[in-house]
This record gives sequence, structure tokens and C-alpha cells, in this order.
Amino acid sequence: MASFNNNSDNSLPESAVPEVVIQRLPLYVRVLTQFSSSGEEVISSEQLGTRLQMTPAQIRKDLSYFGRFGKQGRGYNISILEGKLRTILGLDRTWNAAVVGMGRLGRAVVSYPGFAPEGFNILAAFDANEEIVGQSISGLKVESISKLTQSVKDHDIKIGIVTVPIDHAQEVIDALVEAGIRSILNYAPLSPQVPEGVTVRGIDPVLSLQSMTYYIK
Amino acid sequence: MASFNNNSDNSLPESAVPEVVIQRLPLYVRVLTQFSSSGEEVISSEQLGTRLQMTPAQIRKDLSYFGRFGKQGRGYNISILEGKLRTILGLDRTWNAAVVGMGRLGRAVVSYPGFAPEGFNILAAFDANEEIVGQSISGLKVESISKLTQSVKDHDIKIGIVTVPIDHAQEVIDALVEAGIRSILNYAPLSPQVPEGVTVRGIDPVLSLQSMTYYIK
Repeated sequence: MASFNNNSDNSLPESAVPEVVIQRLPLYVRVLTQFSSSGEEVISSEQLGTRLQMTPAQIRKDLSYFGRFGKQGRGYNISILEGKLRTILGLDRTWNAAVVGMGRLGRAVVSYPGFAPEGFNILAAFDANEEIVGQSISGLKVESISKLTQSVKDHDIKIGIVTVPIDHAQEVIDALVEAGIRSILNYAPLSPQVPEGVTVRGIDPVLSLQSMTYYIK
Repeated sequence: MASFNNNSDNSLPESAVPEVVIQRLPLYVRVLTQFSSSGEEVISSEQLGTRLQMTPAQIRKDLSYFGRFGKQGRGYNISILEGKLRTILGLDRTWNAAVVGMGRLGRAVVSYPGFAPEGFNILAAFDANEEIVGQSISGLKVESISKLTQSVKDHDIKIGIVTVPIDHAQEVIDALVEAGIRSILNYAPLSPQVPEGVTVRGIDPVLSLQSMTYYIK
């Protein structure tokens, strides 16, 4: 383990890692977890590449940003690599999130069972509609959007999930940023404006479809 | 227009364009549509970059894969660039899609109003549960998964949308590929195995969250 910890000496400053590499790391973690649960101990960049439809060279390059993980010709120790990537990504702790917009989509998000097992706890839900405020949805009492800043502070919320209609998305995102949130998961189909230092990921099935038709047109 | 059409002479074979560039093009189309609807006629790579949190150089490089769109120092004609990108992406026509898995998520997908205006028509819905087969959901009669291949042919379906639980996702994806589908939108949280020539895009909010915590940890 000592030699492993020294690996960080070889790694670049975090700002130097391309965002596209960061976005692939959770996929690596997922595949490593799958291999680990099937009893494997070592994995090659070739095996990872096959699972992720990437070349082994690309995988080795991605991982090299964070130090030296594998030994030449011997592959990666699955549990060590998985643990290291989880630490790099900040997945060795839990994160508190708030959902803004409690219409059909927001209700589906707060009832989705896939967040909590991965360490993402939705602790607050907001809506602007006074008829929805006060309702209990999936165990959460919906709060007025006017309480956002105080609630973010009270619950130590670090992630905002935006499920409002497109016409209100930018103002809600502005309010989340104002409240100190720096990570936003945006389900509204627009590209919002945010200040530097704030990361937005969009969940938009139409964009995904639009980048597949290129290959079948 | 004649000189514009000649631009394709400068472009690379489609296989040479990095996938990450293709994935950004729908974002360009969206921003161009927004600018166009606000009455703008010309846009600079600086303006595009500001909206998309990219550098102007990256934008110019992305677009250069497909020919010469802008004149030095004069920016891009919005409607011409938007039209060209829509053609490149295959968005100048409609596409038929089928949803497999008509639980809560599948029902939300077939009732989502954002697909049809963008040219994606969901024409068939499938489930393995005989109690669900035959039901009418958002105007679609749910078919047995055993009818998949015939229905894909009958409806000229080019896109499969997978909304089954994770344990059944790989077998459903195999069935879609077997039925001739080459574009799959996968909502199940796994990285499926598909043959070369088949494109899969995952919709997975957990992966998106996991690549944001890197920046706030």
C-alpha cells in the first residue's frame, strides 16, 4: 500500500485532467465493481477496453493522469484501482442533494431507488407552487423555493437537481448558484449559463438520440 | 449556396470524426436554434463558446471536421450552420423508435412530450409481462417482446429505447440488435456489450453525479 500511495506524486494537478476523462471515470468504477463482484482480482486494459468499447491505449492514457496504477504486463488490481478511482471522484463519502421542481419528473427523481446506494441522499425538495409546498412526497416535505438558501445551509446540500420546466430552469439554476451550490444535475432541455467553478451535467434523452442518428442516417 | 455545398469537399470521412465531437453537435444545434429564434443572423465562435463553456478554438476545431463554415472574422451564418449540422446529424428527417419495458420508467418515456417535436416518434412499446401486454399506454398498445423483430420491420423502427430493470437489460439489448436495431438509448445502469456498428447511449443520472463530485470534493 505504501508504494501505491506514492503514486500521487506522479499525478498531474486536478485542473489539468480533461473533463472528458473525468466523465469516463465513473464508467471505469462501474465496470470494476462488476468484475470485482464476479470474483476477479486483476483486470487488463484490454478487458476494460472491451467492456467500454475503448482502446486499451486510451484506457492506459486516461488512468495515467492519476499516477501509475498497473504493472507492465500484469494488469490492474481491481479492488485497489476501484478504491483509488472512488477516492479521486469523491465517492468515498456521501453527498446531500436537493431537487427543485416537484412535478411528474421531480417526483420520479425523488422516488428513484438508484441514488442512495451510491451515496447520493436527496434531503430536500422544492417547488414554487404553493399548492405543492407542504405536501409529503417519497418522505420529503416539499418546501417553498424561497427557503432554498436556508435549507441548503441547514442540510449541507452540495448538489442541486433541476426538474422544473424549461422556462424556469435558468432562474432556478441561478438561485442554486446563489445559494452556494456548485454541482447541478439539469433535466431541463437547455444549456444554462453558470459562473466559472460551477459544473452542470444535463440529462437529456433528445440530445443522446440526436448524436446517434449521425451513425445510422 | 453553391459555394456552401462545396464545403463538403474539405471534410473528412465520417468515421474520422471523434465520437466526442459528434456528441457535442446536438448542443451546437440547440444553441443555434435559440439564437436564431431571438432574431440573430450571425454568431461568432466566441459567442458559441460562452454559451457552451468551451473555448472558441475548440468550437472552430469541432466544426472544421465538416468543412469550412465561417469566414475569417465574420462569424457563422446561424441558419446555414444550423441546417448543415442538422443534415450531418440526420435531423432533417424523422426517426421511428420503440420502447422496451413498460414499467414506471417506460411509461414516463412514452408520455414525454419532448421527443416528437424533435422528430423522434415512438411507434411501438414492448413488455415481457403478459399482464401488461395488450394495455394501451399513451396511445400505444403494448406488444409482447416476442413480436419485437416483426414489429421493428413493420414500423421501420431504427431506435430502441431500453427501460427494463438492469437484470434484463443485456438480453433486451441483444434482442434489439438481433432485430436489426443499431441505435440504442439505454436507461438501465449497466455498460452493455454490443457488436461493432451498434451505438449505445446511456441515460444514467448516477454516472453524471459521480463525475461532478470530482470537482467539489
